[in-house]
Amino acid sequence: MTISASSPIGIFDSGIGGLTVVKAVQALLPSERIIYFGDTARVPYGSKSQVTIRRYAQDDTGILMKYQPKMIIVACNTVSALALDIVEQVGKGVPVLGVLAAGAELAVRHSRNSHIGIIGTQATTLSNAYSFAINAIDPDIEVFSTACPLLVPFAEEGFINHPAARMIAQEYLAELLARKIDTLVLGCTHYPILKEMIGDIAGPDIHIIDSAEAVAAKAGQTLAENGLLNDSEIPVSPHLLVSDLPQKFKTLCRLFLGNDIPDVELVEV
Amino acid sequence: MTISASSPIGIFDSGIGGLTVVKAVQALLPSERIIYFGDTARVPYGSKSQVTIRRYAQDDTGILMKYQPKMIIVACNTVSALALDIVEQVGKGVPVLGVLAAGAELAVRHSRNSHIGIIGTQATTLSNAYSFAINAIDPDIEVFSTACPLLVPFAEEGFINHPAARMIAQEYLAELLARKIDTLVLGCTHYPILKEMIGDIAGPDIHIIDSAEAVAAKAGQTLAENGLLNDSEIPVSPHLLVSDLPQKFKTLCRLFLGNDIPDVELVEV
Repeated sequence: MTISASSPIGIFDSGIGGLTVVKAVQALLPSERIIYFGDTARVPYGSKSQVTIRRYAQDDTGILMKYQPKMIIVACNTVSALALDIVEQVGKGVPVLGVLAAGAELAVRHSRNSHIGIIGTQATTLSNAYSFAINAIDPDIEVFSTACPLLVPFAEEGFINHPAARMIAQEYLAELLARKIDTLVLGCTHYPILKEMIGDIAGPDIHIIDSAEAVAAKAGQTLAENGLLNDSEIPVSPHLLVSDLPQKFKTLCRLFLGNDIPDVELVEV
Repeated sequence: MTISASSPIGIFDSGIGGLTVVKAVQALLPSERIIYFGDTARVPYGSKSQVTIRRYAQDDTGILMKYQPKMIIVACNTVSALALDIVEQVGKGVPVLGVLAAGAELAVRHSRNSHIGIIGTQATTLSNAYSFAINAIDPDIEVFSTACPLLVPFAEEGFINHPAARMIAQEYLAELLARKIDTLVLGCTHYPILKEMIGDIAGPDIHIIDSAEAVAAKAGQTLAENGLLNDSEIPVSPHLLVSDLPQKFKTLCRLFLGNDIPDVELVEV
């Protein structure tokens, strides 16, 4: 397999949430070709077991590998927390970046009082992967996590600023806010859609970390270090693959990517 | 394959919701052996495509067939709406009952003003399967449907009477109530968990149809007609199978079955 600067960047997620990462990569690196796979036939991952999540991650990576990517970005926090090693195995030497490590690093850089809050899926918070990643950089930081399972369906149904969504988010965040955190990581790729509402509830003194932007920055840096940045100046549309409901995905794309909606291809897992 | 009165009844659902059917069958036919399969590795079905739902229904039926059931009950409204023929094919002559037909019949019997409301998943309401089933019995009945995608996660997370769940349910039901329905079908196997709240919102003049009880009654009747009722007087615990997270399933069982919690076995799909 020959990897070159013109090879694509492969990105995958359990479903549609990872498009927040596609958007961030596109904004930062508009000349890069992106292959995106969303496993819409088996979404969500965050409420499932580690064994199942690892099996799904293996399949997802296999699909991207057919396109000979120069890098794989795991846009799913749950997979980043529980199955990054499987992605690396199947990726056979292709650099792999997970949203989790990127978000953790950025959170450490921003926190002043060393109290960081994490919101994510059940599987991500139970894994303690954010605590491990943050404390590996700075063991003195206190990390507080809360699972917010209902925020994914709210985001997927477009209840972006509904009073019921706000009420539930307030309950989820109450304990973290009581811990005097100064930094809050959106530890699920769906949450950036609810960023404004979450920011409102958290208040102006808490810095919100969006892992999508963090991982895009890290991708640019890694590609530059390896001499693999695409220097073509023609912006290209991402190539989108899903395992179910391409039409619905296309409609939802508007919410994530804005107006530029490419075709969506159906693949089997 | 030899089917006898002592053969089990096979029941399946996309996840945990079908336990409302297990409970209703147990209450009515306590001597029957029940094999239940919940596809917790691929839940939910109701937001996925017909092709995918049919593929999953085929797998689920195959798992139950290994136990040589004397009857298969499709506890999932989405599969009942979109894939009952696949279940019958894989079932090779074993009688198949779907919650949808049972609920539709009961609704027709109860409605006085011929205005029936249906709430269900996206896939179920888009299929119009309830309208077809109801109008096949009585073409003069007007059927009004609304998809309520957020009620499944509310039920699964145990938000049974939370003000946010109530607010969303009120929005979902507003249009149906404006149509002056006198009968409301809970067209998703998760909704009986929210029955009290939904009944409160609908008010005392609307009859709520719980398809779980309807299908249990029909199962008893069909078995009696075929001389296949189990006349042993020893009540038996159901045999529960899931494709993921057996421990979580066991915990959630309390919500559905009460205190009697049998072991849960993990199977691969």
